Amino acid sequence: MTRLLVAFDADDTLWHNEPYYLQARQRFADLLKDYGQPEVVSAALDGIEIANVQVYGYGIKSFTLSMIETALTFTDHRASGEIIAGIVALGREMLSAQVPLFEDVEMILAELSRSYELLLVTKGDLLEQENKVLRSGLLSFFRHIEIVREKTPLVYQALIERFGVPLQNFVMVGNSLKSDILPVLAIGGKAVYIPYVTTWSHEQVSDLGNTQGCYELQSLRDLPALLEYLTNQTAVSLTP
Amino acid sequence: MTRLLVAFDADDTLWHNEPYYLQARQRFADLLKDYGQPEVVSAALDGIEIANVQVYGYGIKSFTLSMIETALTFTDHRASGEIIAGIVALGREMLSAQVPLFEDVEMILAELSRSYELLLVTKGDLLEQENKVLRSGLLSFFRHIEIVREKTPLVYQALIERFGVPLQNFVMVGNSLKSDILPVLAIGGKAVYIPYVTTWSHEQVSDLGNTQGCYELQSLRDLPALLEYLTNQTAVSLTP
Repeated sequence: MTRLLVAFDADDTLWHNEPYYLQARQRFADLLKDYGQPEVVSAALDGIEIANVQVYGYGIKSFTLSMIETALTFTDHRASGEIIAGIVALGREMLSAQVPLFEDVEMILAELSRSYELLLVTKGDLLEQENKVLRSGLLSFFRHIEIVREKTPLVYQALIERFGVPLQNFVMVGNSLKSDILPVLAIGGKAVYIPYVTTWSHEQVSDLGNTQGCYELQSLRDLPALLEYLTNQTAVSLTP
Repeated sequence: MTRLLVAFDADDTLWHNEPYYLQARQRFADLLKDYGQPEVVSAALDGIEIANVQVYGYGIKSFTLSMIETALTFTDHRASGEIIAGIVALGREMLSAQVPLFEDVEMILAELSRSYELLLVTKGDLLEQENKVLRSGLLSFFRHIEIVREKTPLVYQALIERFGVPLQNFVMVGNSLKSDILPVLAIGGKAVYIPYVTTWSHEQVSDLGNTQGCYELQSLRDLPALLEYLTNQTAVSLTP
């Protein structure tokens, strides 16, 4: 029997990421406090950031450029060099920030890596994500790290084919319905949804409803038991 | 007999890239003309850009952030919002610029793709490089596109293993000694060096000397004949 191939999202699935962006948004609004209320500045940034995903992609460099564009637009180009320098410094700080692991992540991955092949599949900026994986100390638990531009059904399909496992043996674990769950279900794979406390508005999609192959957990701690169940289920379904 | 697996670098190997950066450097110096001579501004940018490769990685977003940092540092934060906005606009223009193919590239790749497995291996920013490949119209000639953070011997080794060909059947074609040639020779692969007219100072390394497995061509047009020679040579070396 082929073992399960278990792929993990990284940001907000294995470690906290969103809080850094929330905090940066607050500091950005503070830099522009002479020009507008925090919530107005923040809304302007949101709009520019989402429009810029097409142009710049994901990641901290894109976010930094979006903050700079927002500062210029919002102030009719009157933003001072000090403000721009403050934004650049904010971005650089984010790039070298700690990677705060979820509780017990190392223990859980160590356990799982004894029974399953583990992959890390994350979208975003190559340099940033590789650096985060290195700083996380989790690298050794994964057979392979895949950093992709967008997590689409085709991207998952190619990945599964590359590792040569039957579709029914593939499980994706993540906190984003849009990126980790729905595209995997779309190609008939299994997905484990572990919601994060706050999820970026750009990533929010409607509810899951009743979808085959989809499981929701409150915590990574419940994953070993679920994977054991899925292993037995896969074994049964393979029996002629 | 296993076919050759022929991997190509992209920027300045299949299409012109460096001229965009040279042109952007000139326009950047022009934006700062009230603060210093073009060659002094340009030298300041070079220094910051090379230091920033560690922080930001390669690509246009990194380059844009380096231009902004240079403008701030060079003017003691007196650079106006108009200058910063001009830099941001310059970066956005570069991101959507045409991809000017080398002469006859399509014909050459079409011919080669009938006899060999072709890969594209490029370093840099995921979004930028994927977009350039799409805009180039060359996507269909390649079995796989690999975008990596740095082209190291380990990265090449992993790639060759993933495609399951013997090392002697792997050929890398590119214009950068540092990224395309030396790391491949280091693991015992074959490399075809096709110099570009101008090469970014960061990429320059000392001469090749006489190195086994390394071939230098003036033009991509000479590649089909060389690959045919290498195929015969590989066949001979495989004969017991």
